[in-house]
Amino acid sequence: MPKAISLALEKLNDRVNKINSLLCVGLDSDFNRLPSQFLTKKHPQFEFNRWIIEQTHSYVCAYKPNPAFYEARGYQGWLELEMTMQYLQSYYPDIFLIVDAKRGDIGSTSEQYLMAVLDKLGADAITLSPYLGKIAIKPFLARKDKVIIVLARTSNPGAEEFQDLMANGKPIWQHVAKQVVTDWNSLGNCMLVAGATYPHELKIIRQIVGEMPLLVPGVGAQGGDLKVVLQVGLNSQNRGLVINSSRGIIFAKDPQNEAKKIQATMKTFLGTN
Amino acid sequence: MPKAISLALEKLNDRVNKINSLLCVGLDSDFNRLPSQFLTKKHPQFEFNRWIIEQTHSYVCAYKPNPAFYEARGYQGWLELEMTMQYLQSYYPDIFLIVDAKRGDIGSTSEQYLMAVLDKLGADAITLSPYLGKIAIKPFLARKDKVIIVLARTSNPGAEEFQDLMANGKPIWQHVAKQVVTDWNSLGNCMLVAGATYPHELKIIRQIVGEMPLLVPGVGAQGGDLKVVLQVGLNSQNRGLVINSSRGIIFAKDPQNEAKKIQATMKTFLGTN
Repeated sequence: MPKAISLALEKLNDRVNKINSLLCVGLDSDFNRLPSQFLTKKHPQFEFNRWIIEQTHSYVCAYKPNPAFYEARGYQGWLELEMTMQYLQSYYPDIFLIVDAKRGDIGSTSEQYLMAVLDKLGADAITLSPYLGKIAIKPFLARKDKVIIVLARTSNPGAEEFQDLMANGKPIWQHVAKQVVTDWNSLGNCMLVAGATYPHELKIIRQIVGEMPLLVPGVGAQGGDLKVVLQVGLNSQNRGLVINSSRGIIFAKDPQNEAKKIQATMKTFLGTN
Repeated sequence: MPKAISLALEKLNDRVNKINSLLCVGLDSDFNRLPSQFLTKKHPQFEFNRWIIEQTHSYVCAYKPNPAFYEARGYQGWLELEMTMQYLQSYYPDIFLIVDAKRGDIGSTSEQYLMAVLDKLGADAITLSPYLGKIAIKPFLARKDKVIIVLARTSNPGAEEFQDLMANGKPIWQHVAKQVVTDWNSLGNCMLVAGATYPHELKIIRQIVGEMPLLVPGVGAQGGDLKVVLQVGLNSQNRGLVINSSRGIIFAKDPQNEAKKIQATMKTFLGTN
């Protein structure tokens, strides 16, 4: 177990305790689904995000843009992702910012993704694929001011194809979880991804990692059950989860009400800490 | 075995046969390593790439920019990546264009990365991580005009951490290779990544995949041996490899001469087809 935790994890913990919420809103702001009033703006994705942030910030501990939805529009989209991140850092400096990049490349390239996401975009945390192993993502692991979130068991249909292959009596995703908690996390800056759509696996990951916080996507449009996630995923402090909904909130008829409802459910599980 | 091959693979084959080269130049145009004369330009990475392309195009079958090196500069870098891709498509339409994005996300996000890389950037091929399984990357696999290059055994130190875990008597990277060749490749649009730094594994991948072309990074700065790669990696047609060097060429004292030397070595292995 690491002696300390990263500055960014402290930020997350403070925010969770302040507003009693584990909710992360995924800013997967698909240009083709934006309400028409934003399409005439100079920066449609940014303006939409700003609106979503105004509607939801009181209920969230984190925001999580996925770069794919911005890259799809080329450099213009990347500019609006930057604007969104700058806006969040300026106006809501206590909200935890995850860039859900799922990058995974050799060491010298990892340094570039690090500059892109942790420095230039100013994210507190980045999601990474484990496929290339620890050495490849060492530049990330060395950043004790940030959080590295490693994919263990993902939320998608078909996740089992390779993640569930059994090696030495346990599936690959358990090897990943074990390595991250026992070896990669020496600076106390790691988290894992465990999909809400696979609560059985989430429960096992909780047993493997102890108190380590988990990012749990898949509540909302992907069908994961919020209460089940809370029942099986919380750590011994009734904390340790960042539960994400993207489309289920941002494209809801009333995003504010949707976020509020989810936070209300969470509150009943969190108690006072 | 698929009955047909994708249009993009035909383009690659035509180029290989036309110039007798399997060389791919990786446009990993690290801003901090650009020669000083480019730093005063309005678009330094693009101008550097244009110069590298002028120096090397006669000797290459493919170019392979890695988006990390552009994202590190934010939207300005992404713009110069777009300019580079547009330039290549306009002036060298018969050269195969790989964007080495190593993306891997759930299905709805894959659609966005597809728009970003295959449509907006106009790449012929994209590299993808296998970790989320086939269903997650179905939007890519459905594109019979393009090529999907799946990571099997990567070139980096530490690649073995998860890729070499043994399941049912064989390592994960062999499971990936087998699945891609027997199941994912029904439209004849798949390739695999096999690192030049692990020739033993490259040889086995060749045995598993038959004639399927392989992208082989790791020659040059990473230390892979070109002749060994050619000896163990070529298919029965003396083809089937795209061998990449990035830093070893683009930051060489004389990039043209470096590319020329590599192509000369390749020629002796290719014979006439």
